[in-house]
Amino acid sequence: MKRKFLGIDIGGTNIRGKIISEEGNTLGERKTLSDARMGISRLMENLAGLIEGFAGEGISAIGIGIPGTVDRASGTLVQAPNIANTRNFPFTEILSEKIGSATPVFIENDASCAALGEYRAGAGRGSNSIVMITLGTGFGGGIILDGRLWSGENGFAGEVGHMTINPSGPLCACGARGCIETYVSQVAIKRIVSEHAELSEKLAGTEESALPESLAELAREKDQAAISVWNGFGANLGVGISILVNILDVKTVVVGGGLSGAWELFIGKTLEEAERRCLGGMQRGLQVKRAALGDDAGVLGACYVAETGLGESC
Amino acid sequence: MKRKFLGIDIGGTNIRGKIISEEGNTLGERKTLSDARMGISRLMENLAGLIEGFAGEGISAIGIGIPGTVDRASGTLVQAPNIANTRNFPFTEILSEKIGSATPVFIENDASCAALGEYRAGAGRGSNSIVMITLGTGFGGGIILDGRLWSGENGFAGEVGHMTINPSGPLCACGARGCIETYVSQVAIKRIVSEHAELSEKLAGTEESALPESLAELAREKDQAAISVWNGFGANLGVGISILVNILDVKTVVVGGGLSGAWELFIGKTLEEAERRCLGGMQRGLQVKRAALGDDAGVLGACYVAETGLGESC
Repeated sequence: MKRKFLGIDIGGTNIRGKIISEEGNTLGERKTLSDARMGISRLMENLAGLIEGFAGEGISAIGIGIPGTVDRASGTLVQAPNIANTRNFPFTEILSEKIGSATPVFIENDASCAALGEYRAGAGRGSNSIVMITLGTGFGGGIILDGRLWSGENGFAGEVGHMTINPSGPLCACGARGCIETYVSQVAIKRIVSEHAELSEKLAGTEESALPESLAELAREKDQAAISVWNGFGANLGVGISILVNILDVKTVVVGGGLSGAWELFIGKTLEEAERRCLGGMQRGLQVKRAALGDDAGVLGACYVAETGLGESC
Repeated sequence: MKRKFLGIDIGGTNIRGKIISEEGNTLGERKTLSDARMGISRLMENLAGLIEGFAGEGISAIGIGIPGTVDRASGTLVQAPNIANTRNFPFTEILSEKIGSATPVFIENDASCAALGEYRAGAGRGSNSIVMITLGTGFGGGIILDGRLWSGENGFAGEVGHMTINPSGPLCACGARGCIETYVSQVAIKRIVSEHAELSEKLAGTEESALPESLAELAREKDQAAISVWNGFGANLGVGISILVNILDVKTVVVGGGLSGAWELFIGKTLEEAERRCLGGMQRGLQVKRAALGDDAGVLGACYVAETGLGESC
């Protein structure tokens, strides 16, 4: 009998589920509210409810992408800054009890899932190794080397947002100064606009989450200050890419997340700076690609986590 | 019959060779001048001469560490900035012809060999994954993930000296600004001393290669300016280590090379800065260790390249 894999992406607002066939075809999709801010118990209830909605589908394994640090081997959620009471939470054990099923459950970091999704079915298709950068509220990342997700020794690998690009730069939420996240993220855009009187005035009243798009519109209308912000954003992204490429020597960097919507406003400076700073320049055959799957990358990647997990546990 | 592996380390001055047994015991050692500056032909002659000195030893495979970028699969030396006429040089083919032997030859980058040496027999022993940083003229590196050398898609991985830590910093030999090599290397020490009138005067006439040791002596004699240079050196090394650890999440970073002789003068600041900048702090169990093998790391690592190469080609 052919196998089916259920992938689940836990976001701040929604939990999304998708079933794929062995061939990678989507067989069904559902979503529900996550209520992640109301704590882990409520989240687990919602998650179990979503999974029960797929009952009778004959699922071989479940993969779950979680916004936090996970210990894959034991199925423990080590920490998740945006979900209350999650330190060292025995995630797969409790979920299996709740759904009363022996279907194997595998967990993974959500940014790693997105990287897997783009690697197998999106902009990274055909590559051996990729780094995926997700430009959202923060600056997230996932690393795939020679076809395998590199998660690190603690499951913390790919925290690329906390690469220092200026030791005396702005203070980051992590407590350090000058992490790339303080220059290239939604949080960064907010800071940069707030420090610029003219832009602050033009964008007054814009909600934080809408700020990058409004700033992009200004730039498309040829506002010089807005253009200059995106130029700086692009150049700093290029610095970050060059650091990753000098260390890892991958040929493909995929850039996704909400802020990649402003692609044409920053990518020129990104490539210019990356070329200047990558040893051996573009001789390396480096390609910086725009993510192709949007929000689907994470949930699809979670399906692959299910598939891979099952393969390794056989 | 038990196998024997010949490892060779090609340096700017000498070529060193070592034979080890399957158990890792040293069975013999030789060295000769490399004359690397006189070009690749002369170097190949010297290399063949060294290998012929081991004739009759019954060597199973030869591993060679080269200061350059290599294509392992084809045995090509892609580029070596310090050896003339080496672009895309068919290294293993020409060497095999020259020594007239069918003994398999495997080549590797020298910094990667040093990382392998420390990983298997030095400060990295017992670790799953390490980054090795070599502080010499420049800032070199080698990356071992889950027991395997990560060489990258072009063989360029581990060029950690060209991580940007300040986009508007000093000009690096690579053409970019603010690479960590411009802050943490012998070249950096030379620049920093030259920009400091008092230190320049105290160290006038010191040869470039002796500068770090002389500066360390000054600091040990409580010269405040010298102490302050080593503090800055240490802090910048800590920034670099945090970048590597945030990306790769290895628990062990090994620091070697000539400049690690000033260990006690910089390591305090290094650890302080790394702790501040590594996400999750020292919860990760990060250890920054001093390399244990000195110059032996590279030649021993080359022996392991021979062993691994033979294993993979069987």
